[in-house]
Amino acid sequence: MRIALIGAGNLATNLGAALLEAGEQVCQVYSRTLQSAERLADTLGCEATDRIEQIVTDATLYIVALKDAVLPSLLPLLVKGREKAVWVHTAGSIPLDIWKETSAVQYGVFYPMQTFSKMRRVKFCHIPVFLEASDAALLERLKKMAACLSDSVYVADSEQRRFLHLSAVFACNFTNALYGMSEHLLKQHGIPFEVMLPLIDETAQKVHFLSPVEAQTGPAIRYDRNVMDKQLALLEDEPDLRQVYELLSDYIHKTSAIGG
Amino acid sequence: MRIALIGAGNLATNLGAALLEAGEQVCQVYSRTLQSAERLADTLGCEATDRIEQIVTDATLYIVALKDAVLPSLLPLLVKGREKAVWVHTAGSIPLDIWKETSAVQYGVFYPMQTFSKMRRVKFCHIPVFLEASDAALLERLKKMAACLSDSVYVADSEQRRFLHLSAVFACNFTNALYGMSEHLLKQHGIPFEVMLPLIDETAQKVHFLSPVEAQTGPAIRYDRNVMDKQLALLEDEPDLRQVYELLSDYIHKTSAIGG
Repeated sequence: MRIALIGAGNLATNLGAALLEAGEQVCQVYSRTLQSAERLADTLGCEATDRIEQIVTDATLYIVALKDAVLPSLLPLLVKGREKAVWVHTAGSIPLDIWKETSAVQYGVFYPMQTFSKMRRVKFCHIPVFLEASDAALLERLKKMAACLSDSVYVADSEQRRFLHLSAVFACNFTNALYGMSEHLLKQHGIPFEVMLPLIDETAQKVHFLSPVEAQTGPAIRYDRNVMDKQLALLEDEPDLRQVYELLSDYIHKTSAIGG
Repeated sequence: MRIALIGAGNLATNLGAALLEAGEQVCQVYSRTLQSAERLADTLGCEATDRIEQIVTDATLYIVALKDAVLPSLLPLLVKGREKAVWVHTAGSIPLDIWKETSAVQYGVFYPMQTFSKMRRVKFCHIPVFLEASDAALLERLKKMAACLSDSVYVADSEQRRFLHLSAVFACNFTNALYGMSEHLLKQHGIPFEVMLPLIDETAQKVHFLSPVEAQTGPAIRYDRNVMDKQLALLEDEPDLRQVYELLSDYIHKTSAIGG
């Protein structure tokens, strides 16, 4: 396969590296900023461009990894003149049907559900990838390609994928925000965030074996008002954290398996 | 050392097992319900009681692992007639000074910061333990004992420990509540929670190498209103989750390292 990467952000960077490792050939990187395109293209040993009209027309697969908001306006321009290829986007929240607004004939979705930062390479093989395609034959081709990159390949329709993305925001993005709040509180009392890592790891490991409801611990599940009120008092000067504390404690109490 | 365990809950269960493994002798388990005391005592090969007056008087160390709320009223009764021993409690949010309301002479705090469930044994050696003691000599003795159980032993005063506990509630208890919300959303769309585990693991692993602020990803950090509004619309029938979504997205946006 001759693959063009449309995008040079966190996901494109990690995906490009994984493709290279799997022995695939990335022939070009496009980004709206030439510098980003060149930075990624350099690591992949291919050419870079920031101009849509310079995107190769002979790739067999175009993988679009751009910010969701630009897809509706950009996809038709990208596909035009490149209709023979397979087109996939990588966005959890964008339905398959977005391709119907373009002249693409064979199209799909390749959604790797993971948190990507340029500063950290992830092992792509552990990332669940969710696929959707314009027809059954293409779905099989995408499955084969995805299986070269990941051990966990699933088929999910656009509705399921929207909820996958939403669930991932809770389990990953919001979880990381809580880590940030924890770090903020520790810093203010001269305690390094590192002391929290064993607890963070165990909290994640635990839900491999117990459901989150079974795994729940802490003052809110015991509804230990004594501790909760004292902790709220410690957050007197932190109105945001106070609100988070109240909201999440209420939720834990409400959804408690123990009840009452 | 001849150790008596006062309490038979999640922490006492895990601590008892760790003590046994470290070659320490637990001579008795007390719990307010005999059944709980017996269950733990059986695994430790010692006797059980649910009556304070039957608690042994010749232990050298009493470890109190009870619900915070009962400590003020129960500690004086427990210590009475057992003043020669060392007394420690295990509660993050209870200050050292609580012992001043008792007749204890040598007392301290042994706070293992971890999430304990009876259904899951944890490796105690990886758990950070925070110590405080009534005098320097006792602190050294507690350090030695703690070092047999854990690789990470710290000294923390009561004020620091209160904030450790509070930070742990954010990084562990509230994080687990988010896992629960994620599971709830997935279930409703026929998707097994297992697909989320690689993302949960990577989110936890990432903050070993990047600070939470650096590690943040997702629609809120990009302030992608398009995705955020669509996701809020998916939560139309979930007022609790909607509130959590709005509050945490705002926080991520506000504390963003990238800015505006």
